[in-house]
Amino acid sequence: MVIVMRENATDQQINDVAEKLHEYGLDVHKVVGTQRTILGAIGDVGNVDHRAFKIMDGVFEVHRISEPYKLAGRIFHADDTVIQVDNAVFGGNQVTVIAGPCSIESAEQLLTIAKAVKNAGAKVLRGGAFKPRTSPYAFQGLGVEGLKILKDVSKECNIPTISEVMRESQLDIVAEYVDILQIGARNMQNFPLLSEIGKTRKPVLLKRGMSARIEELLMAAEYIMAGGNYQVILCERGIRTFENYTRNTLDISAIPVVKKLSHLPIVADPSHGTGLRNKVAPMARAAVAAGADGLLIEVHHDPDHALSDGPQSLLPSQFSRLMEEVRMIAWAIGRKID
Amino acid sequence: MVIVMRENATDQQINDVAEKLHEYGLDVHKVVGTQRTILGAIGDVGNVDHRAFKIMDGVFEVHRISEPYKLAGRIFHADDTVIQVDNAVFGGNQVTVIAGPCSIESAEQLLTIAKAVKNAGAKVLRGGAFKPRTSPYAFQGLGVEGLKILKDVSKECNIPTISEVMRESQLDIVAEYVDILQIGARNMQNFPLLSEIGKTRKPVLLKRGMSARIEELLMAAEYIMAGGNYQVILCERGIRTFENYTRNTLDISAIPVVKKLSHLPIVADPSHGTGLRNKVAPMARAAVAAGADGLLIEVHHDPDHALSDGPQSLLPSQFSRLMEEVRMIAWAIGRKID
Amino acid sequence: MVIVMRENATDQQINDVAEKLHEYGLDVHKVVGTQRTILGAIGDVGNVDHRAFKIMDGVFEVHRISEPYKLAGRIFHADDTVIQVDNAVFGGNQVTVIAGPCSIESAEQLLTIAKAVKNAGAKVLRGGAFKPRTSPYAFQGLGVEGLKILKDVSKECNIPTISEVMRESQLDIVAEYVDILQIGARNMQNFPLLSEIGKTRKPVLLKRGMSARIEELLMAAEYIMAGGNYQVILCERGIRTFENYTRNTLDISAIPVVKKLSHLPIVADPSHGTGLRNKVAPMARAAVAAGADGLLIEVHHDPDHALSDGPQSLLPSQFSRLMEEVRMIAWAIGRKID
Amino acid sequence: MVIVMRENATDQQINDVAEKLHEYGLDVHKVVGTQRTILGAIGDVGNVDHRAFKIMDGVFEVHRISEPYKLAGRIFHADDTVIQVDNAVFGGNQVTVIAGPCSIESAEQLLTIAKAVKNAGAKVLRGGAFKPRTSPYAFQGLGVEGLKILKDVSKECNIPTISEVMRESQLDIVAEYVDILQIGARNMQNFPLLSEIGKTRKPVLLKRGMSARIEELLMAAEYIMAGGNYQVILCERGIRTFENYTRNTLDISAIPVVKKLSHLPIVADPSHGTGLRNKVAPMARAAVAAGADGLLIEVHHDPDHALSDGPQSLLPSQFSRLMEEVRMIAWAIGRKID
Repeated sequence: MVIVMRENATDQQINDVAEKLHEYGLDVHKVVGTQRTILGAIGDVGNVDHRAFKIMDGVFEVHRISEPYKLAGRIFHADDTVIQVDNAVFGGNQVTVIAGPCSIESAEQLLTIAKAVKNAGAKVLRGGAFKPRTSPYAFQGLGVEGLKILKDVSKECNIPTISEVMRESQLDIVAEYVDILQIGARNMQNFPLLSEIGKTRKPVLLKRGMSARIEELLMAAEYIMAGGNYQVILCERGIRTFENYTRNTLDISAIPVVKKLSHLPIVADPSHGTGLRNKVAPMARAAVAAGADGLLIEVHHDPDHALSDGPQSLLPSQFSRLMEEVRMIAWAIGRKID
Repeated sequence: MVIVMRENATDQQINDVAEKLHEYGLDVHKVVGTQRTILGAIGDVGNVDHRAFKIMDGVFEVHRISEPYKLAGRIFHADDTVIQVDNAVFGGNQVTVIAGPCSIESAEQLLTIAKAVKNAGAKVLRGGAFKPRTSPYAFQGLGVEGLKILKDVSKECNIPTISEVMRESQLDIVAEYVDILQIGARNMQNFPLLSEIGKTRKPVLLKRGMSARIEELLMAAEYIMAGGNYQVILCERGIRTFENYTRNTLDISAIPVVKKLSHLPIVADPSHGTGLRNKVAPMARAAVAAGADGLLIEVHHDPDHALSDGPQSLLPSQFSRLMEEVRMIAWAIGRKID
Repeated sequence: MVIVMRENATDQQINDVAEKLHEYGLDVHKVVGTQRTILGAIGDVGNVDHRAFKIMDGVFEVHRISEPYKLAGRIFHADDTVIQVDNAVFGGNQVTVIAGPCSIESAEQLLTIAKAVKNAGAKVLRGGAFKPRTSPYAFQGLGVEGLKILKDVSKECNIPTISEVMRESQLDIVAEYVDILQIGARNMQNFPLLSEIGKTRKPVLLKRGMSARIEELLMAAEYIMAGGNYQVILCERGIRTFENYTRNTLDISAIPVVKKLSHLPIVADPSHGTGLRNKVAPMARAAVAAGADGLLIEVHHDPDHALSDGPQSLLPSQFSRLMEEVRMIAWAIGRKID
Repeated sequence: MVIVMRENATDQQINDVAEKLHEYGLDVHKVVGTQRTILGAIGDVGNVDHRAFKIMDGVFEVHRISEPYKLAGRIFHADDTVIQVDNAVFGGNQVTVIAGPCSIESAEQLLTIAKAVKNAGAKVLRGGAFKPRTSPYAFQGLGVEGLKILKDVSKECNIPTISEVMRESQLDIVAEYVDILQIGARNMQNFPLLSEIGKTRKPVLLKRGMSARIEELLMAAEYIMAGGNYQVILCERGIRTFENYTRNTLDISAIPVVKKLSHLPIVADPSHGTGLRNKVAPMARAAVAAGADGLLIEVHHDPDHALSDGPQSLLPSQFSRLMEEVRMIAWAIGRKID
């Protein structure tokens, strides 16, 4: 922690700050400049609330200088984490595509879509069984019935699966039926849920909250990793901005920033990131071009009659064409999509 | 729902849209203007995804025209809801102040603060037992032990209490010990938790999410009310903006807007809304001047040694002075603080 | 400037950074901690781009530690600046109200409104002659004709005036006719215009840009003050947030923050800050309660036929009642409105 | 315009609204639904302030239903506008790259960079002579001297040029020396400057404001086009978000959205959009993958000693490699870079 004193701070004020730092068990290094004094605090500042100093007399600014996350950062884990689920690989040279419908609606529906997306190159099948909806009156998903369908289709098509877990009490059942657990954007800071998932040993896909800073996303990953579960795939799914033409604004720049700060793989979800079918392909291409480790794409063979998010789902034919485009883009930047 | 066609939309495109509206069981009224055609859809549009129309050929814009919330809105409930907890009243002519420490630390600490705030005019005692923390390594609250202290102090001082519930499994125990349940900002869209609370008959204080629109706050209240629990107190606690001098930006204008759209009472939390002790009083005064039904204020007799949020806690003497100021402001706008 | 090295930074990397600091003529103080090294740079860092260090190998974070503004800050000017225009005072114990129509439409219109607002207690008359409009097809103001009307009414009612200047070429003529120059939110970073106004000796009311941080507002004031014109009144007029019920979100917390960082007076404009007549009074009261030095209120005797911003204009009777309320609120916090 | 009445609106209230619409010369179509009445207003609503209706009794919502921009929209101009400057083409199948230093510093500097970027495939040379700086104490550019250098280098290398114009009084001189005028983000709503540029017949590159919605960007283009200058190239250069790791957040999704709403070409500026050298290449690739018509890239052969924005400038070797990558990406989506 670095505390910058005001230019006109008195010796008394400087001493008061130094003393308070000592109270916290910190070593203090004083740098006396031509205009102002700076106090550097050395030691474990993990539990120090920097605002306690910000409000002291004579203090101009307080800078926290260590990353609050440890396990999610590159400092102690320089190499990229690679997470393998069957033959889907997240985090290597490979770009891996997850696809499927927003909601599981029936065995027929899921099987039709699963075959199409696997055929086009998807390596993981997505499908929602428990759906978080902003209205209490909207379709809330098939629940356990949906999970069973997902499991059956997974076996029949030989493709691993991902599905969202919304509450602690669903954790066991979802973990039983799927290969990757998904945490939705609205639960990114549901700390009890994150802690419980940290106790499992299932791979997790953690979506960035609608207005979360990247540091907050990494702190949410830290919650899971602090429990011993290191298999965390991060997911950029769009942030809220002033632009309202699209549902959210997919923050492509989060991809290279996360790659710099963290060793965890990051994928992009252009379906939720835009909310509009005809914007999905350009943004999926952009994500791969920017270095994403994968994509999460909603596909539906009959989107007009989908029970949720039909307007942002690609048709299987559109998905196939997109796969061709991103395959070439991956190749252009030295990566590959099997 | 109103669908505005493009100026150059073809008859075929207009018919396609009309037909799709009919498929949803909606009546269609066509308004043919000099430049473009507008289709008004009459009927239950609750489960229609408006984007399904937005992406159709020839469509320019789609406007949803009914409030998605029903129970929380003024349409079917024109009069202000008044929630009474012992002799604390939320929603009438009265302005009611909730005060206490951020975290319950010990019986002595809480009793000291409770006496001080009650003496100054607070009508409800706040105190956190389960604390949501962005770091998994930070103090997480005293838990059930804290709830017991809260109950004891409540009895001794004859003042009702409020404390946060963070997860479904805590609901029963928190409900047993406190008078008002608090839902934190990060849980505003934790839909399973909201639903469970809707099944209780305990008054709830629901905090606005960090980046939530007012409509989303009202939809979260709707989740609780849909379960039959109508005793919801809304709370403005600061939104995220680009300004980083304060922790959050307390959105004072949310107060008159909520009063217009909803019959539910709304209080303001200037402690979390600013994060800095010396900004709490001006913002508390502003909230009352703008018409808030109450305040939620953090008070600590020894904030330098508080286990959480000390820097934003008022000293008891500062709290007393603030009470005097807001009493006069309430009076200036025709309200009162007993 | 403080440069925080990564925990695993090499001696070579630390030396490279130190050397680069020396190149800029800065003294370097090295603080070697248990986990990482911090370099404090002492000297004139005004023209150093901190990103030049942020991208160096081994660097974790760079903190700029001096305010970029000098003249606008409290460091060298601890006492509040008081700006007097006839008997309107900005910055003292007084709360001063500016009122009038959005646009000057005719001599009759302005005179009617001027009499009403002066009678209710306004000390300065506002009225737009040059109007910035987002559409090139909208009413752009009466121009010089409007300025003449403003001058005439000012004399007849014996009240000083304020009007907006939008471009450098208008500066002389506006300065000739009005007492206070207004810079609109969209011109807050029109640096050439700010520089030109800095060369005049006219009081200026500078509006905060729609998405500007407070530091940026103070830097804009610095541009004016660097030219020798120290009579700057700051104005909070609403920021853009995700909430779209109101046109903008009046940031009341900016008032106490500005009072802490700067000696310049700050007023609030709840008319533009909300855009809706029935929200103006609550937000005006809130601004005064939070410590604003004044208000800027749009008033129109016939808002239904106003040529601009009628929907956010108060009627004279509403304005009178508001003046009574804010008078009592000012008194409640130890200030006064004559 | 569509006016949605409250569910409990009285006949009187509905009639009042209808009458007011008639006052504006609009035709009124009334749609009586099962729950509420909707009034559709047909006619020229360009100068109607929709808030005038929003505040009327009984009104629930008001929707403006026509695009406020005409010339910039696709309605009356379905085909893409193609702007040709020498052999640089904006808006066709071609992806066109503009490159050069942030500031012109000397003839040697500019010539060195110009040769390098032209050699790598850039089609237009950028270089700032008048620099908008947030601090009045920072380097403000070489001015006319810089323009002369730009002209000389342009001739020697046979490459057209672009440079920023910040104020009306600079317009003639900048137009004399450069081929494309640039309007910076802070001037996107400097309406007098836009109007003046509309009177010229020079191609213009118009940057999106830091917090502007896409509609506002198109309205700014409308200001220029209303004067008869239709050669407007739009530029996405990053918006302000809560993330502060990067200087701005380059909004890649603006590219497909603009392509849908407008016929004008759009380019991306990843240098300002990220502010960090090592983020420029991923974001440039993303922009091309999303369908941008071009790029604006800062390049400097000695960025450590650049007078402005060195940290975000690519080295010539990095720029060459980037050109190879974007060439392949353009090809992957059926476009080309000559």
